[in-house]
Amino acid sequence: MTDPWTVETRELAHDRETVMRHGNIYQIANGHMGYRGTLDEYGPDELVAVTLAGVFDQVGEAWREPVNAPNGGYTRIRVDGTPVSALSRPVTSHRQTLSLKNASFERETAFDLGGTAITISSRRFLSAVRPNLGVVRYSVTVSRAATIDIETGIDGDIWDLNGPHILGLVCEKRGETLLVRGRTNEAGKDVVVAEAAAFGFGEERSVRDGKRNLRVVAFAAEPGKTYTFFKVFAVATGFDAIEGSAADAAVAAVTAAKAQGLLVLEAEHDAAWADKWAKSDVVIDGDEVSQHALRYSIFQLLIAAPVDGSANSIPARALSGQVYKGAVFWDTEMFMFPFFLHTSPEKAAELLRYRIRTLPGARRKALTEGAGFRGAFYAWESQETGDDACTYFNIGDPLTKRELRTHFRDKQVHISGDVAMAMWEYFKVTGDDSVLLDGGAEVILECARFYYSYAYFKKDKNRYEVLDVIGPDEYHERVNNNAFTNMVAKATFEIACAAVAYLAERHAGALAALVKKIGIAKELPLFAEASRLLYVPEPDPETRLIEQFDGYFNLKDVPVEAVKAQRIHPDEYLGAGQGLAVPTQVIKQADVVMMLNLFKDRFGRDVKKANWDYYEPRTEHGSSLSACAYAMVAAECGDLDFAYKYFLKTAKLDLEAQYKVYVGTVFMGGSHPAANGGAWMTAVFGFGGVATGPEHVAINPRLYPGWKSLAFRLAYKGDGFAVHITHDAVTIAAEAANRQAHCFVVWGRPVSVAPGKTVLVDRIVKVA
Amino acid sequence: MTDPWTVETRELAHDRETVMRHGNIYQIANGHMGYRGTLDEYGPDELVAVTLAGVFDQVGEAWREPVNAPNGGYTRIRVDGTPVSALSRPVTSHRQTLSLKNASFERETAFDLGGTAITISSRRFLSAVRPNLGVVRYSVTVSRAATIDIETGIDGDIWDLNGPHILGLVCEKRGETLLVRGRTNEAGKDVVVAEAAAFGFGEERSVRDGKRNLRVVAFAAEPGKTYTFFKVFAVATGFDAIEGSAADAAVAAVTAAKAQGLLVLEAEHDAAWADKWAKSDVVIDGDEVSQHALRYSIFQLLIAAPVDGSANSIPARALSGQVYKGAVFWDTEMFMFPFFLHTSPEKAAELLRYRIRTLPGARRKALTEGAGFRGAFYAWESQETGDDACTYFNIGDPLTKRELRTHFRDKQVHISGDVAMAMWEYFKVTGDDSVLLDGGAEVILECARFYYSYAYFKKDKNRYEVLDVIGPDEYHERVNNNAFTNMVAKATFEIACAAVAYLAERHAGALAALVKKIGIAKELPLFAEASRLLYVPEPDPETRLIEQFDGYFNLKDVPVEAVKAQRIHPDEYLGAGQGLAVPTQVIKQADVVMMLNLFKDRFGRDVKKANWDYYEPRTEHGSSLSACAYAMVAAECGDLDFAYKYFLKTAKLDLEAQYKVYVGTVFMGGSHPAANGGAWMTAVFGFGGVATGPEHVAINPRLYPGWKSLAFRLAYKGDGFAVHITHDAVTIAAEAANRQAHCFVVWGRPVSVAPGKTVLVDRIVKVA
Repeated sequence: MTDPWTVETRELAHDRETVMRHGNIYQIANGHMGYRGTLDEYGPDELVAVTLAGVFDQVGEAWREPVNAPNGGYTRIRVDGTPVSALSRPVTSHRQTLSLKNASFERETAFDLGGTAITISSRRFLSAVRPNLGVVRYSVTVSRAATIDIETGIDGDIWDLNGPHILGLVCEKRGETLLVRGRTNEAGKDVVVAEAAAFGFGEERSVRDGKRNLRVVAFAAEPGKTYTFFKVFAVATGFDAIEGSAADAAVAAVTAAKAQGLLVLEAEHDAAWADKWAKSDVVIDGDEVSQHALRYSIFQLLIAAPVDGSANSIPARALSGQVYKGAVFWDTEMFMFPFFLHTSPEKAAELLRYRIRTLPGARRKALTEGAGFRGAFYAWESQETGDDACTYFNIGDPLTKRELRTHFRDKQVHISGDVAMAMWEYFKVTGDDSVLLDGGAEVILECARFYYSYAYFKKDKNRYEVLDVIGPDEYHERVNNNAFTNMVAKATFEIACAAVAYLAERHAGALAALVKKIGIAKELPLFAEASRLLYVPEPDPETRLIEQFDGYFNLKDVPVEAVKAQRIHPDEYLGAGQGLAVPTQVIKQADVVMMLNLFKDRFGRDVKKANWDYYEPRTEHGSSLSACAYAMVAAECGDLDFAYKYFLKTAKLDLEAQYKVYVGTVFMGGSHPAANGGAWMTAVFGFGGVATGPEHVAINPRLYPGWKSLAFRLAYKGDGFAVHITHDAVTIAAEAANRQAHCFVVWGRPVSVAPGKTVLVDRIVKVA
Repeated sequence: MTDPWTVETRELAHDRETVMRHGNIYQIANGHMGYRGTLDEYGPDELVAVTLAGVFDQVGEAWREPVNAPNGGYTRIRVDGTPVSALSRPVTSHRQTLSLKNASFERETAFDLGGTAITISSRRFLSAVRPNLGVVRYSVTVSRAATIDIETGIDGDIWDLNGPHILGLVCEKRGETLLVRGRTNEAGKDVVVAEAAAFGFGEERSVRDGKRNLRVVAFAAEPGKTYTFFKVFAVATGFDAIEGSAADAAVAAVTAAKAQGLLVLEAEHDAAWADKWAKSDVVIDGDEVSQHALRYSIFQLLIAAPVDGSANSIPARALSGQVYKGAVFWDTEMFMFPFFLHTSPEKAAELLRYRIRTLPGARRKALTEGAGFRGAFYAWESQETGDDACTYFNIGDPLTKRELRTHFRDKQVHISGDVAMAMWEYFKVTGDDSVLLDGGAEVILECARFYYSYAYFKKDKNRYEVLDVIGPDEYHERVNNNAFTNMVAKATFEIACAAVAYLAERHAGALAALVKKIGIAKELPLFAEASRLLYVPEPDPETRLIEQFDGYFNLKDVPVEAVKAQRIHPDEYLGAGQGLAVPTQVIKQADVVMMLNLFKDRFGRDVKKANWDYYEPRTEHGSSLSACAYAMVAAECGDLDFAYKYFLKTAKLDLEAQYKVYVGTVFMGGSHPAANGGAWMTAVFGFGGVATGPEHVAINPRLYPGWKSLAFRLAYKGDGFAVHITHDAVTIAAEAANRQAHCFVVWGRPVSVAPGKTVLVDRIVKVA
């Protein structure tokens, strides 16, 4: 029986690919930084990385990417002078464990050194309370008396994809604290790691080994006795909002932590994690595999969630490394945001604040793309400034070894609407207008302004159209009137009007100031007109099909496999102008079906079913964003077997880590928080049938037959509920601290749930 | 000294490429059919082709192309039983001559057969009076007594690029007439060649040799005596507008011709050619090379000109074979039409009638391209129905061996405006409104309707824009607001309004009927609005540069050679989505400069000069249409050396035939009537400085310093003029038959030239 709270293996990987996959699976993070699931004695060759959230650097013309810090968790040992390590010594047993409960990584490895049994065990976590702090507890035991040297400290030899990002590395010691520091290449800002260790034994001396700044503790070990120490490391940078130097901050952090001791650090960390799980856990009764995979998915979202007040967001590969430039994509708003919005709205707000913070970058992008637009055109690949990290030539062609011109950056305009919709969704579901007032409304209006500037009017058809875009299906570039994009643009105009109406009623002064600040008064009536006259492809009256974009149905209708079979090289990209899928109806990922899911209120089940049936067989699912959209619509249409299959596919993606690691020479390995969010959505929205609106929460369960029950917590309008769904009934328990009663509509029947009360709704109305 | 009326070589080509080039250079044609410059005894391996104008056929999925007829001009001999042929026998001398004066091909070849000297000479022409008739005179002389077999008749073994097009070939004899007939693959229509020969000697018997239907005339030849016969062949098809069967028509044609005899056939043909040259010749005094090349260019246009009443046009490779699908491109209206308009307006009208005839095809194309448009979207590659022969995958990629998606067909929308402008230009220059009334106005209105349907309105800029097009520079596909295209669209709206205004005044009934027929009443005010509000990129106030399309100036500015140097394969196409020129400012051919030349009245010399200077170094001149546009604008800007260089480049293109013959495996060899037309335009419009408007003819000579004088005939408003230009004076002689006096503005000074009068205008006004 699988422990639903841990991930464990006894496999000690040596090949680079498994080391990489384990590094992803066993990673820990605390929103401020990520630490890959590598062993204490590992170095850059084993893809150790302490990746910093929101800190970026570029070297030459290479991709700009997050900065990896020197590794303050480094430890290795010698026994009787011989290095004993998972890298070199005969290992007799190995076990490594990720605890989902408190985001800690443990390993225990036994060696045989000429008859001496040696056991190393360690545990580490990144404090959920102190964002820049890492904590390591390390133990060693020998079966026969031996001299042990523990070498621990900071490894400044950093694995970079496109580095080196930290120049002029210096090793220092301040009192008992080790320091490694340097400056970033681009901004010339400090990056400092400090380390402090608490040993109750042995004799300590300092060693500099290349870029490693180490302390060596030598002692004579008695047989069978376990020697344990703990250490802490802190990362501080010139990018942090700190007073004084980064070095001082790092030293202060480790000094305080060491003084408070391991038990305190563990206790506060564990308490924070208990709170996270209390808010976020989903319990599936009767299906261990689903339970484990879903919990792992939720875990991935929790470790990547930005630190409060950081105005950071979550990159598409989270904090698992420098992959994908550490960039934030639409993945966040469309696939991760709903989880946070419905479990930890304060984290959802943080994600939105990132978009508010990067509004100036989105404005710059609008002005400079194409013929120049107005408003906010958000970056397709967004880093800390909001300028676009996506290049115009973003995919390598294995056939010609050239970079292919792709239009992800300049034509995937739905990104701005994705952001605007998330802004509004937050307000609708939480009732909290503070984000709107603190820049969110400005973002919404600037996104509407962008679409107005981008759209064209077709006089003879009396409608606005959105031309020359890429929808979610990236295999078809530069298409006209993509149903998804047009709907998102239309929604943006509607939201802009709704936001203005709301502010006019409740915050007239703030609205007036905003309208004046961005000089948008004359455009507001145009937004209203555009919200009415913007064309969105309609379902065909007979077939109920929605054409993905103008002319899609004229494309060659060939099976996905037939397209793939034509590839000359297995890594050949199927899109980008001349790709094999371009002249066909084969699509990369959910597009119309994504739209139907996103705007589920606006379309009937007949339309969903018809389009699902049409598009699913034509979908390559070449993106991790695809499966969950199909799964949710399948659940809604009653195809629970399919929904389950795609739910599992999504939920297990990072746990099994069987994804592609290299595309050509580009390292692509890393976790998929969008898929993790998709797994949560499929469980709660798909099988749970939850839909939160401004007036009430609808629950129309479509529980998978193999599940006995599904239970989760729901945050709504500032209050909290425990929802428990079985095949026969839905139970909603309002938390005692709730401030008011809320309406739930279960199986179409409205019920009011007052603070502290529990309401049970039977599936079948029992006639008394 | 070169005979300015002939092209001659003593080179007997054996390699396939020279045979091909000679076949082009020495071709003859009469508008109804072309006959490549091959020898009497040649067959399909030597690329013999009798290509029929306006008759097309398709086999399977291969390119649809013109039908080549069986070769009725075939003759070979045996001397004492041994075949004597340029293909096999030791040739002691050879000479072949193309006479430009009367479009006849002559050859004289001497052989040595074991000490016997044998001389073959022949001459052939395609009758300028009887479109379906070919005439051959053939002689043989031997130095010693010998038995000669002359085998002459019809060779049914046809060279096809994508054939066979004629199925079920049958050889027959009707009386003395030989027949080869079959049916086309696609339409199943008859293609028949009949041949009759007049021998005054020998004994005749029939021979069928494979697909050859021959008569063998055997005789004992006396030493030194020349034996001459003549033969005629006629091609008739089920596509011809004839009564009765094609076979009957062909037999009747050769029977009549043979009866009338060679002298009559020659005399009527020569008279017709004398008339052509009287109307069309341009005389350059002081530059034999230019004179010869220009006359050859004019010759090419004359042989390709459609037969009166055929409503045919001129394919981009004329009648030199099946190359380029025998399709009509914008080449005709933009590069050939002006020559005919100003020399033989009845041919210009024929070219226009082709577009009127194919209007239904243009309507079909509009409806089916993209999201579907209204009006007339003319075919990029037009055959007899006006449906588009251009494929969506029109260029082979040597790197992947795949066909590249190109947007020539669906995005090169300027073609419709090119047609509409030619319609209007004909009316302006000839004063003849019959073409307008016979469908021309309908074409113009349907082209305007197409642009209205294609264009979008940008409300916030209060302008129409033309999006997603390819301009003349085909290396940049799917661009917005291409200056050339937008200007052409704007002109089309203007012309539509002007045509309606003219018809309203002069032919109100016809206008009313037309407006009703095509239901366009409500759209006419929109055309007027669009003619005012259609955006055309303006010259920059400071640099005077016009941006070729939105964002062009943001592209990488690299030398043409640097782009070419990156090619992996020499035949790699530089455009089409991922081509090497796409992200750069390197352009295939004149685009902005083409526009400045086409709309020369609307731009000052400063704009022309600035844009010429900017764009010329960035132009690859990868199209035969490029050089003349740059030459004309250079002449206007006073850079006569450059103009001369590019004039010669254009004028010598087909005469020297040093163009690319194969692109990948696609045969591209053939003549370039657009370049021929460009040579004429450069001479008359460029150096001659002629510009014909509705009110007067302007002449602002920019005579090349190396030329003493330039003389040409000009057709204007139904009358004719001989114009003679020296460095000091312009002499205009009105033909006696002219109906009225016309105004010429020479060096800015208006003069009236009455019928039969000659006016001399000095460059420098002499004060008396």
